[in-house]
Amino acid sequence: MSTDAPAFTQISYDVDDRVATITLDRPDRLNAFTPTMARELIAAYDRADADDAVRAIVLTGRGRGFCAGADLGRGGASFDPTDPQRAADRAGVGTIGGVVRDGGGTVTMRMAALRTPVIAAVNGPAVGIGATMTLPADIRLAGASARFGFVFARRGLVPEAASSWFLPRIVGVSRAMEWAATGRVFDAAEALDGRLVSRVLPDDELLGAAYAIAREIADNTSAVSVALTRQLLWGMLGAPSPWDAHRADSAAIAHLGQGRDVAEGVTSFLEKRPPAFPDTVSDDYPGHVLPHWPAPPADLTD
Amino acid sequence: MSTDAPAFTQISYDVDDRVATITLDRPDRLNAFTPTMARELIAAYDRADADDAVRAIVLTGRGRGFCAGADLGRGGASFDPTDPQRAADRAGVGTIGGVVRDGGGTVTMRMAALRTPVIAAVNGPAVGIGATMTLPADIRLAGASARFGFVFARRGLVPEAASSWFLPRIVGVSRAMEWAATGRVFDAAEALDGRLVSRVLPDDELLGAAYAIAREIADNTSAVSVALTRQLLWGMLGAPSPWDAHRADSAAIAHLGQGRDVAEGVTSFLEKRPPAFPDTVSDDYPGHVLPHWPAPPADLTD
Amino acid sequence: MSTDAPAFTQISYDVDDRVATITLDRPDRLNAFTPTMARELIAAYDRADADDAVRAIVLTGRGRGFCAGADLGRGGASFDPTDPQRAADRAGVGTIGGVVRDGGGTVTMRMAALRTPVIAAVNGPAVGIGATMTLPADIRLAGASARFGFVFARRGLVPEAASSWFLPRIVGVSRAMEWAATGRVFDAAEALDGRLVSRVLPDDELLGAAYAIAREIADNTSAVSVALTRQLLWGMLGAPSPWDAHRADSAAIAHLGQGRDVAEGVTSFLEKRPPAFPDTVSDDYPGHVLPHWPAPPADLTD
Repeated sequence: MSTDAPAFTQISYDVDDRVATITLDRPDRLNAFTPTMARELIAAYDRADADDAVRAIVLTGRGRGFCAGADLGRGGASFDPTDPQRAADRAGVGTIGGVVRDGGGTVTMRMAALRTPVIAAVNGPAVGIGATMTLPADIRLAGASARFGFVFARRGLVPEAASSWFLPRIVGVSRAMEWAATGRVFDAAEALDGRLVSRVLPDDELLGAAYAIAREIADNTSAVSVALTRQLLWGMLGAPSPWDAHRADSAAIAHLGQGRDVAEGVTSFLEKRPPAFPDTVSDDYPGHVLPHWPAPPADLTD
Repeated sequence: MSTDAPAFTQISYDVDDRVATITLDRPDRLNAFTPTMARELIAAYDRADADDAVRAIVLTGRGRGFCAGADLGRGGASFDPTDPQRAADRAGVGTIGGVVRDGGGTVTMRMAALRTPVIAAVNGPAVGIGATMTLPADIRLAGASARFGFVFARRGLVPEAASSWFLPRIVGVSRAMEWAATGRVFDAAEALDGRLVSRVLPDDELLGAAYAIAREIADNTSAVSVALTRQLLWGMLGAPSPWDAHRADSAAIAHLGQGRDVAEGVTSFLEKRPPAFPDTVSDDYPGHVLPHWPAPPADLTD
Repeated sequence: MSTDAPAFTQISYDVDDRVATITLDRPDRLNAFTPTMARELIAAYDRADADDAVRAIVLTGRGRGFCAGADLGRGGASFDPTDPQRAADRAGVGTIGGVVRDGGGTVTMRMAALRTPVIAAVNGPAVGIGATMTLPADIRLAGASARFGFVFARRGLVPEAASSWFLPRIVGVSRAMEWAATGRVFDAAEALDGRLVSRVLPDDELLGAAYAIAREIADNTSAVSVALTRQLLWGMLGAPSPWDAHRADSAAIAHLGQGRDVAEGVTSFLEKRPPAFPDTVSDDYPGHVLPHWPAPPADLTD
């Protein structure tokens, strides 16, 4: 049942019944984020997205927390690009706009491009990159013990991992500014009130609730439909006019409307039986229908 | 009192005391959506928008549901553009981006361009296009029996009718993705929790509540003001900067500030009496002040 | 303790313990808005933003209301640009797009450009410009007696002060349209339900709650971090893609990561003591890292 990749050292990766679980796995360090963890997360998302047997991803943390934030093992030099150890740790991370890419952003940009939906199950503290790495997830659930903090202004930094783009689109600009300007650590109830999470659950029901949503997706939907839906909804956040969406969904409907999945979807519905969609993202994703979102900019150097 | 248009066969259209009611009217089919219904809805919106005696529109469904979604009478070929019957039904629907326009989108793009506000009163199931056709409405109210479903991924399709643009701007991207990725059908309470509707009412109070809001508009506001307000608020969703709004509203205020409606609006307020605004959209709408929103793209072929 | 500027006649300005308070100060007129008040508000925001000893701004009203809206002392001519008195009052207000700038917008555009966060504490009525002038604030709190109204359509006008841009980004487009199309005056509970304010407090606890948030910011965060955070979060509302944020925050993190504030922020956190950030916005704000937001357009004439 487990398909742990031996190559992973700071996360674990398992697939069970068409749902992949990515677990931040440094429980003795409250799963603090490192350059190694960033590389492994990107590899895990690559792997899930390339596997037609994976229909949804659950992201969670091992032990009593989700992720305590960036590992501060280098103290005051933890974010210093001129620190030799930090520079060595981050070799090969690439540049954008002529500067070394923010490490959290390398992970969230990979998540944004996913064709597979992600459900974040936040157990215990999720602070700094621990909070911002959940924002490109499609759904966030919190255990009762969850704590969130966009603490960057308390550390002399700014919200990273492209969270300045994601957070206001999830919770509105006022709540985003309140959390980012104060740097406050807040509990699951405040996260729910602000719509950062859609539900708060007893800690021992958190993973079960995340898997239940993953099952809803895996058991009932077309993989190609969900992949295109993810591109459409996230992609249209940046479109100036609904005509952009009308153009895109007209092309998608015209293509899908003559396909095998829609025939199965409509027929199974009329026959009141579960669908068995034949198409796969690997073979049948119509890349020509929609522009890829988000399109990496020209000045990106990997 | 009734001004039913004899030309309408799948909807009805009535005007009473400056409020138009558009009723989806195939109750034996749970008001399932067809190409004919699309044409009639567009004609009804045209008619309401051209009539200065109409100050607000209420959209609802006849019988025990709002709209069950697209009519699936052609089974697995219901969305196949190469099916001869479907092609015949959709003759003249026009193209965008070189492909035949999605039928639901022809309706929602007409709604987006309205100068008259729309209040959707959702009674019973509103599924697929039944849900997405309410998104360009300004206000959505639900009866207790309402059910919503963005079920496209369960049918092998994607969210249509430009709903990928509208839905995240109404409920936020996370809730939009949860509903679209699972394709779940959900009740009025979940719709309210997610802000898809602003209120849930007992079924027998639903229409009354919708008309009460329509009355608030009809009895108290300037028609030209409301038409410009609709253009401004929806239009600025796509504007990159508040300076765009400052430019637009400066032009609008400079124009309106020397007009008859503002004189009546301020004077009636100071005299503590109801206003009697003299201006009409037909004669006094200042089309030069604001660009028309949303502007149809150059590659649209009707 | 008080640092009232003798030049102000319709507002007051005080600084206490690194928090500035701007108080609308025409209590006999329910703090009705005038061209003089607009000029004084802009000067007060300039002053607070230029003062490194000010870490947050609280905006409130003197007496039993926040702001009753535009002063209507000229009756039906109150908004007429051809009225000689109005023209004289508004001399020098500048143009945009070839027309005289809306007066409320001159204030909200100044607020949008702030490097210092603003908390609006709304006591009693906030109507018209009284409501819209709070929208570029980062946080809005309401006293139980607060009343809000986007009443423009009832006066023959449209929402001004760039509120067509701000309001839907705070409360969503549906609630924004409901309030703007009806012009309804609504209470604090409806404002909270619609997310226009994040909290409602007993009137005698309103200012205390606003100062408590200001204290959270002043006592715990880096001024340079907060200034950059404000630019990032508001600025990215108009960015089409999260890659824009990734580029911007990568540059900011690379710069800040080798600075004094991050060393103090991380060290004080590890030492479990309050931070004492050395950097100031005047001396250390890295203007080259982020484009200034919102960038005034080329056709602006002050």
